[in-house]
Amino acid sequence: MVDHQKAQQAVAMLLEAIGEDPSREGLVETPARVARMYEEVCGGYDENAAEHLSTTFHVDGSEMVVERDIRFYSLCEHHLLPFFGTAHVAYIPDGEVTGLSKLARTVEVFARRLQLQERLTAQVADALMDDLHAKGAIVMVQAEHMCMSMRGVRKPGSQTVTLAKRGLFAQDERLVDDFFRMVR
Amino acid sequence: MVDHQKAQQAVAMLLEAIGEDPSREGLVETPARVARMYEEVCGGYDENAAEHLSTTFHVDGSEMVVERDIRFYSLCEHHLLPFFGTAHVAYIPDGEVTGLSKLARTVEVFARRLQLQERLTAQVADALMDDLHAKGAIVMVQAEHMCMSMRGVRKPGSQTVTLAKRGLFAQDERLVDDFFRMVR
Ligand SMILES: Nc1nc2c([nH]c(=O)n2[C@H]2C[C@H](O)[C@@H](COP(=O)(O)OP(=O)(O)OP(=O)(O)O)O2)c(=O)[nH]1
Ligand SMILES: Nc1nc2c([nH]c(=O)n2[C@H]2C[C@H](O)[C@@H](COP(=O)(O)OP(=O)(O)OP(=O)(O)O)O2)c(=O)[nH]1
Repeated sequence: MVDHQKAQQAVAMLLEAIGEDPSREGLVETPARVARMYEEVCGGYDENAAEHLSTTFHVDGSEMVVERDIRFYSLCEHHLLPFFGTAHVAYIPDGEVTGLSKLARTVEVFARRLQLQERLTAQVADALMDDLHAKGAIVMVQAEHMCMSMRGVRKPGSQTVTLAKRGLFAQDERLVDDFFRMVR
Repeated sequence: MVDHQKAQQAVAMLLEAIGEDPSREGLVETPARVARMYEEVCGGYDENAAEHLSTTFHVDGSEMVVERDIRFYSLCEHHLLPFFGTAHVAYIPDGEVTGLSKLARTVEVFARRLQLQERLTAQVADALMDDLHAKGAIVMVQAEHMCMSMRGVRKPGSQTVTLAKRGLFAQDERLVDDFFRMVR
């Protein structure tokens, strides 16, 4: 997916632009490493959540399933700096549940892109509704943005918290209460 | 110092190389933001420690001065990803002490570059010897590297610890003991 040659050329140019010497020992391999890194940290572009969420198992009833504290790393599309933290993901099944690892994989699919935290949160919730055909989905993401801690306003330790509710979670506050008790 | 036009061109090229559309709404300003970001996070190239360490005050005696838990952010020269943590800096004055903020500023001068943690640690210690003319200097740096947590081996929470001893600290283990007791 990543055009390695173009990425390497871009990184070498960036090194020159900041006044560095791309041919000095420590930097010679940097363009190639950064290209490989983008392949990995932006690997989500080549995946889609539906593939993961299509492995399902039949269940009776429709009790909430919560996968909490899913650690993730993403890249802020504004500064190309990491943001990272945890996602709590829950859904109300409609007769079908998915493998638990698939919830974490769904987070990865959307985290491994240039992102906004709000969009990441919404995309995970939408995938549970559209691809797992859940009756309701709720996603809470808590993350520290390096663009807030290492530069600009420089507020290390501050966290951004985002929430997306879909289906039954948008209608029934008692379900939302249960979710918050289960992740606390 | 940063060539903004060249940096912006490089970042737009990088966005294309990873398959993104640099003209989509969220990314239009990204090349300019990243160029400004490098100006800030690589600001150390335009500074030198001697400027900061030349403001000194006379003291009698030569008791160790420790500035501990100096938070810093730097960029790994291998992956252009942040590494961050704390530095503990100490020196034995030779009749002259510097303002305490100057120790933190010295860390910033060397952190705000593309770095290796080992080199950062050594450069701070060397500056205290060469520019403050200390009789001894010791620097310990503890940091988490995003290139270890978000990609590659993916070991979030692991820390790299580095130490540099100069002058009296390289000769007298009792001074080193005192330093470790004072930072613990
Ligand atoms: N809503 C939202 N904002 C974000 C995310 N990531 C991220 O960098 N931002 C913010 C930080 C800034 O407030 C804004 C970009 O502002 P800007 O165009 O003025 O750029 P800047 O670098 O000069 O801003 P600043 O951080 O120095 O204030 O985008 C995110 O995931 N969600
Ligand atoms: N000694 C030292 N090593 C560092 C620092 N920052 C940093 O990325 N490294 C390491 C991580 C890797 O072990 C090495 C680069 O290895 P490499 O040329 O094989 O690149 P890579 O990205 O494929 O390596 P890897 O992290 O995937 O193992 O540099 C640092 O500050 N000090």
